Amino acid sequence: MALTTEEVTTQVLEMGKKARAAALELAVLGAEKKNEILRAMAAGLRAQASEVLAANALDIAAGEERELSSAMLDRLRLDETRLEAVAAGIEKVATLNDPVGEQLAQWQHPKGFSIEQIRVPIGVIGIIYESRPNVTSDAAVLCLKSGNATILRGGSEAIHSNRAIAKALQEGGEAAGLPANAIQLIPFTDRESVKVMAGMDQYLDLIIPRGGKGLIETVVSLARMPVIKHYDGICHVYIAEKADFAKGIDIAVDSKTQKPSVCNALETLLVNESIAAEFLPQLAEAMEEKKVELRGDEKTQQILGDRVKAASEEDWSMEYLDYILAIKVVASVEEAMAHINQYGSKHSDCIVTEDNAEAEKFLRGVDSACAFHNLSTRFSDGEEFGFGAEIGISTDKLHARGPMALRELTSYQYRLRGEGQIKAR
Amino acid sequence: MALTTEEVTTQVLEMGKKARAAALELAVLGAEKKNEILRAMAAGLRAQASEVLAANALDIAAGEERELSSAMLDRLRLDETRLEAVAAGIEKVATLNDPVGEQLAQWQHPKGFSIEQIRVPIGVIGIIYESRPNVTSDAAVLCLKSGNATILRGGSEAIHSNRAIAKALQEGGEAAGLPANAIQLIPFTDRESVKVMAGMDQYLDLIIPRGGKGLIETVVSLARMPVIKHYDGICHVYIAEKADFAKGIDIAVDSKTQKPSVCNALETLLVNESIAAEFLPQLAEAMEEKKVELRGDEKTQQILGDRVKAASEEDWSMEYLDYILAIKVVASVEEAMAHINQYGSKHSDCIVTEDNAEAEKFLRGVDSACAFHNLSTRFSDGEEFGFGAEIGISTDKLHARGPMALRELTSYQYRLRGEGQIKAR
Repeated sequence: MALTTEEVTTQVLEMGKKARAAALELAVLGAEKKNEILRAMAAGLRAQASEVLAANALDIAAGEERELSSAMLDRLRLDETRLEAVAAGIEKVATLNDPVGEQLAQWQHPKGFSIEQIRVPIGVIGIIYESRPNVTSDAAVLCLKSGNATILRGGSEAIHSNRAIAKALQEGGEAAGLPANAIQLIPFTDRESVKVMAGMDQYLDLIIPRGGKGLIETVVSLARMPVIKHYDGICHVYIAEKADFAKGIDIAVDSKTQKPSVCNALETLLVNESIAAEFLPQLAEAMEEKKVELRGDEKTQQILGDRVKAASEEDWSMEYLDYILAIKVVASVEEAMAHINQYGSKHSDCIVTEDNAEAEKFLRGVDSACAFHNLSTRFSDGEEFGFGAEIGISTDKLHARGPMALRELTSYQYRLRGEGQIKAR
Repeated sequence: MALTTEEVTTQVLEMGKKARAAALELAVLGAEKKNEILRAMAAGLRAQASEVLAANALDIAAGEERELSSAMLDRLRLDETRLEAVAAGIEKVATLNDPVGEQLAQWQHPKGFSIEQIRVPIGVIGIIYESRPNVTSDAAVLCLKSGNATILRGGSEAIHSNRAIAKALQEGGEAAGLPANAIQLIPFTDRESVKVMAGMDQYLDLIIPRGGKGLIETVVSLARMPVIKHYDGICHVYIAEKADFAKGIDIAVDSKTQKPSVCNALETLLVNESIAAEFLPQLAEAMEEKKVELRGDEKTQQILGDRVKAASEEDWSMEYLDYILAIKVVASVEEAMAHINQYGSKHSDCIVTEDNAEAEKFLRGVDSACAFHNLSTRFSDGEEFGFGAEIGISTDKLHARGPMALRELTSYQYRLRGEGQIKAR
């Protein structure tokens, strides 16, 4: 039974208004109370496991009918083990430090009053995501821990699972004092709902699209509030003149093949021309062992012959997410940096060299969220950074850049305490 | 000679591309070099003072022809004294600490490599502003000090002055090594140029509209990149049950009248009902001395009689910027906070009380950038905060909140330094 545009608009706006009220309640909850709520949410999910799995079975059946790929179906599928992992993940978040209330700075004004800068929640966060139902829990839980209310809008493939998970979390949490409407899932998947969310900046302080480029593009073009984007990872490794070859090969192979489907995987290798003839054959051998297809520029082709395919201009902007590697020979670190700044996605880029001065030049010169020296780009990750959780890796430069976790889901407030000081005297 | 939409689009996009190149150069300039450039910019402005004043005379003549108000003409007018103040302001910025390169955090990964979080420039910042020509210099200078390239788009009233100032700054700076195109002013004022800027997120990392609500609204609805907004200041002072009356009157009068035309001035006074009958007549007397018109709710009218006009629902959302004060009697700190969170603009709000526990409740409970206890809201200001400069007061919660200066014009980068560590082992 399809809703009219007016019905969608009314319902989504109503959810926004309720979320705003919930956010004010959440902002003043203490850390221990929030942790108690999180543990109760995990318990709620376990208690409603059979309802969640039954709902998931409906999504799987619908997905099979729509002939989704087996990879898609696998991402959609929940079972007892996966659901237990989600519940355990919530309990883990309860053990992390609460960022809210942290004092960021404190100083005195010459007139004797104090100025304090304190971390506070952002308010209401909208999350728009695609198929995986576990995002429903991950996103809601990280937002709650950081004191934010959430409005979740999942994809149609997982709608039954998402509804059941959101209900279990909210009901479980309410038993321990979770404010009503702290976690709300839009119960329908009309495209209009994305548009309404993107327009309601009176209720949503931030919107995070998690999904493909098309989804992000839609949200960016419609949104009136800040959007934190997680675009491509077109990551580079530059093998410099003074590179240690063993490190270079290890780092390139790990960055490319340890998990090729992720955003911090290597896509284009740059190599200095003075060492290319010696380095590239060794690299090709290591990559061939891992069944990586190589695509090189002209100079690479001259060195590697038919071990490499010809790269075209488009290859420099490709996020393969697969066992394919683009290779280009460059004359200098300056050319490497210029290539990365032109074709990269400002995500994670690495230089391999024993020349520390050149390494520092590279770290400063690439406009990347994460700049690496002698290290696999696969370390570009919230868990590896020690954040204990991750809501994504921002390719934006405002508010949050690189791996994002609890701190990045907060804002700050200045608190000034005086004794009657006024400006006029 | 009007430009076609295509010509505007082509020219503005070309400026964006050049700004992006300049930003990469600016990002790696050291603090001393930037300060040298700033001093040269001040010298450039002094050297071209007669050209700037001649250009300004054209704007003034055009403004008189268009019958601008005398207040508008005064804001537009430059003379030798004002121009010298602008140049001196640039030299002052040269003495401030450079935020770029500051280490925000540093830690070790269990595998032994280091993770460092370093402040870096944002990149390219677009500033869209209205009449005052000194904004051309203020904005460009703060962006440059923080390592950013700027694209400036001023209003038509000041176009001749803006062109002359931007030229003097860029030429003066280039003599000391300012990269070409670091400071660019859009040389025409077609409305289309705002639209092109708002759409070119490949070149602009941030856009800051400085002006009225209409301008901000236009930018918000069009922008694909982050926008930092400086909306209204609907600031409140709440006189609590345990208020010291002398402090309360001092703070209310200072907040309202020390400079009524600014965003951190008081607009609505809230007073606890248990003390209203005693406090309000004293307040009314102090406000009458300053010729402040009072508009009160029903309870206030009962107490003050014909010393107060009736406030309507709209008064609670008014930014008077004038000698007018709205007054409402509330039952509790909770009602005060609820009123502020509903009608306020999340700018600066104050509680006057000797009850510290209630004060802390208020500071935490109001969703305001700056929350005050026993202090005039007029202290909500970058200079007063000790920032040495101010690009505005953000009413946003993302990236920058409250008074914004050099640090708020930066992002950060993670730099990871290893010895060949890989994820696979």
